[in-house]
Amino acid sequence: MTGDPCIPAPVLRGFLAAALVSGGLPEGDAATVARLMVEADLLGAEGHGTFRLPRYMARLRAGGFNTLPDIRPVAQKGGLALLDGDNAMGHLVMERAAHLAVDLARSHGIGWVGTRRSNHAGAAGVYATMVAEAGMAGLYLAVGNANHMAPWGGTELLLSTNPIAIALPAPGHPVLLDMATTVAAYGKVKLAAQRGQQMPEGWMIDASGNPLTDPAQAAGGSLLPIGGPKGFGLSLMFGLLAGTLNGAAFGRDVIDFNADDRTETNTGQAVLALDLSVLGDPAVLAAQVGAVCDDIRASALRPGFDAIRLPGDRSLGGREDRLARGIPLSPALLAQLDQLAAEQGIAPLNRS
Amino acid sequence: MTGDPCIPAPVLRGFLAAALVSGGLPEGDAATVARLMVEADLLGAEGHGTFRLPRYMARLRAGGFNTLPDIRPVAQKGGLALLDGDNAMGHLVMERAAHLAVDLARSHGIGWVGTRRSNHAGAAGVYATMVAEAGMAGLYLAVGNANHMAPWGGTELLLSTNPIAIALPAPGHPVLLDMATTVAAYGKVKLAAQRGQQMPEGWMIDASGNPLTDPAQAAGGSLLPIGGPKGFGLSLMFGLLAGTLNGAAFGRDVIDFNADDRTETNTGQAVLALDLSVLGDPAVLAAQVGAVCDDIRASALRPGFDAIRLPGDRSLGGREDRLARGIPLSPALLAQLDQLAAEQGIAPLNRS
Repeated sequence: MTGDPCIPAPVLRGFLAAALVSGGLPEGDAATVARLMVEADLLGAEGHGTFRLPRYMARLRAGGFNTLPDIRPVAQKGGLALLDGDNAMGHLVMERAAHLAVDLARSHGIGWVGTRRSNHAGAAGVYATMVAEAGMAGLYLAVGNANHMAPWGGTELLLSTNPIAIALPAPGHPVLLDMATTVAAYGKVKLAAQRGQQMPEGWMIDASGNPLTDPAQAAGGSLLPIGGPKGFGLSLMFGLLAGTLNGAAFGRDVIDFNADDRTETNTGQAVLALDLSVLGDPAVLAAQVGAVCDDIRASALRPGFDAIRLPGDRSLGGREDRLARGIPLSPALLAQLDQLAAEQGIAPLNRS
Repeated sequence: MTGDPCIPAPVLRGFLAAALVSGGLPEGDAATVARLMVEADLLGAEGHGTFRLPRYMARLRAGGFNTLPDIRPVAQKGGLALLDGDNAMGHLVMERAAHLAVDLARSHGIGWVGTRRSNHAGAAGVYATMVAEAGMAGLYLAVGNANHMAPWGGTELLLSTNPIAIALPAPGHPVLLDMATTVAAYGKVKLAAQRGQQMPEGWMIDASGNPLTDPAQAAGGSLLPIGGPKGFGLSLMFGLLAGTLNGAAFGRDVIDFNADDRTETNTGQAVLALDLSVLGDPAVLAAQVGAVCDDIRASALRPGFDAIRLPGDRSLGGREDRLARGIPLSPALLAQLDQLAAEQGIAPLNRS
């Protein structure tokens, strides 16, 4: 929010890493998770970055993560592999999965890595962008870590926000779509609750199908899918692809990691990498992607809009600015971080 | 529609094939296209089946299709290939692409085939289902064949309905999602126009952003994406993946194949196949997919709904019924087919 204190990314990384080490994570892994959490903040995916630290710390303290995991491929043929996360923090599993997908694509033209026994990995866009930064087309799917959506026509919360991220190399920064299949991600509901704000109509409904706007009542309601049955269909198919096919949880067996810090979540994800050099000269393809995007950005505006923004223009396009000016953290989150630092006996976050 | 004459699938296939042969297509190719057009009708994708024959015939007569194409891979590495359709009818290109993706997946665990110089291929779900019928997970993306959507915040029609289809093997019939990234596919707008029906609010807006409900005025308006900027983002990314990366048209260079029967459309598509046997026992995985789906179908209903329908329940679930009872064709379409038969000098469609 405007006026919130801005914390330089390196300061934030150092604090997050120290907190994670105090929770039992080895230093190298803590640095990796901290880096990827701050990467979510730098993309403006604030519901998936530092905001999640208290939850991760509670799970670390409860023994819900394996802090000495053996993350390993358990199946592979050609460009397709299945990674067992051994209940590690999801960031560690997904960084490994994204790198493996890129490696497989270098050898086989295309790589697809599914994960099981993973955990919440933060912002989807971070992993699709990793693939694009390697010069490839990247796609990421995940089963969300708590069921907040009913099937279309139903009332039981059997589905999550199951997100998709797609990133393509382009001049300047990749084109990056990162979206929940629901109108609003649940992280936004939590942010609204933390800030004492109401939600707009269209984000959630109650069990009778009426609009739900008080985030404090969110636990009893359902997020709404984009496009009604279409968004329900996307959430279902992404969940089957990222969860069920990988032997990971989906549907009724999804663990609500906000309510249960101990039970293994068996989270599933999938990441795809396409080696563009098979299809053409990667620099030419990136330039063509950029040209299509620029043409759309420069096209005529509809009354009431000040710009046509493409996926990634706000997130990756704003990353340099957030790197320079720091990451804004709300007073409520800063208070949580101070309390956490005191509990863990680590130095508080320096906001000078 | 209820009460429309129902034509048995074999009768319809025979008529379509004869029409296509009269337009210059070799008999084998005509039979293939006819079969895949009827397959769209059997899935209930009526805007993509027989309904399209008059348009295809106009393009055949104008020389807009290559009737003796050399459809061939122009690039391949491991599981990734690029197919040049040589301006063949799109059904021929896409059937070849789907089979190639399955073959690649058998050898490399995963197959992705992009197409360029293809054409409108009918229903997306037909090709994803082909992959699922081979026991694999299938995904299909395409650039739509006419731009009917403005970017989010813009007014120029630079985007199409760019669809996605995903099919997964399951007991009974595959789970099959087949959806445009717009609230309504343009085929539905055309059907409404043909039937003299108004469109509901939410399908289209005019250039000022006001609701547009008269399908006769559709040419001046924009389809609306699902979820606002999210559906715009999906349409954009699917178009870049299926079009731009394959060297196919996307954006301003898309040819409106409803308005121009001669210019090569250079349509792009992409199809993915994942060999499930790499991830586990395919029969067990299909059973697990089925179990998740059955659990959702059996869950509590929201007031106002009579069932929870999963993707594919209406299309593939209704296929047997349409095979048995025939395919309903509207009086307006039947009149078009009669006129076309007279013009081409072929036997009219037998509806006895």
